[in-house]
Amino acid sequence: MRILGIDPGLNTTGYGVIDASAGALRLVEAGVVRGTRGASLAQRVGEIHEGVADAIAALKPDAVAIEELYSHYERVKTSILMGHARGVIVLAAVQADLPVHHYAATQVKRILTGAGRAPKDQVQLAIARELGLSAPPDPPDVADALAIAMTHWFLGCQRAAGSGQVY
Amino acid sequence: MRILGIDPGLNTTGYGVIDASAGALRLVEAGVVRGTRGASLAQRVGEIHEGVADAIAALKPDAVAIEELYSHYERVKTSILMGHARGVIVLAAVQADLPVHHYAATQVKRILTGAGRAPKDQVQLAIARELGLSAPPDPPDVADALAIAMTHWFLGCQRAAGSGQVY
Repeated sequence: MRILGIDPGLNTTGYGVIDASAGALRLVEAGVVRGTRGASLAQRVGEIHEGVADAIAALKPDAVAIEELYSHYERVKTSILMGHARGVIVLAAVQADLPVHHYAATQVKRILTGAGRAPKDQVQLAIARELGLSAPPDPPDVADALAIAMTHWFLGCQRAAGSGQVY
Repeated sequence: MRILGIDPGLNTTGYGVIDASAGALRLVEAGVVRGTRGASLAQRVGEIHEGVADAIAALKPDAVAIEELYSHYERVKTSILMGHARGVIVLAAVQADLPVHHYAATQVKRILTGAGRAPKDQVQLAIARELGLSAPPDPPDVADALAIAMTHWFLGCQRAAGSGQVY
């Protein structure tokens, strides 16, 4: 199963694609989509949508996992702007007929490290270990995107174990 | 000049198109795009984007005016969800190479009635009068969309008067 994880942002959107099968995770590709700094909101949502749609077309994932925003922002204005980015990312997935799964940041940390409030470097080490990387992925947006993709896989395995279904 | 005004919402997005020229406003078409109730967020952003893109393709506006969300919502979750709707609407405009203009609700009320906190029915009467309608547009999402389109036109006229340019 190929999973595209996305860490949404109006300035920098991280993405990471992993191939997952029983007992093995492999990093396929990861990177960032950047909106032009100082450009209008309209231009930036266009750039984000195009970048994510291009990644989907090139990498052909089976599912998309994206970080929830709810718990992140205290300011309403920031929340709305992040919602714009997230809206066009979810649109790119649905336009490619891909299922979209949403995970909270605390859920991602708990799945990867066992603790919902684990420090950032502990999460990064877990990512590197699971994917067999010599160093944690950089920038952090890429690490977060990979963490979300991995969370989707691990939760899928747990669901399968619990229900007796093969995932 | 043909202006598409939009009142964004995840459940109901109002749109209204007016033709504006010196001294005359004309209602071209107005309506709503509805997301399927109970559908996933992904499906709804897809429906909103498609509905707005279809309206743009059919009605060929020269500009899009959309309501700001900043001052509207106190809850972060609502703000983020509304941001999703607004993101895919702005995307539909930029994909059609249309300029996007943003107006706050208080600005719309002030332009149409002279008061930033005018009651809703006073705004609706102003819309009906300016467009020569026998009754205020219904539902309210349509009235709000038309009000935003009209605000863009009136502010354009003011800018033109101030700068000496023909708008």
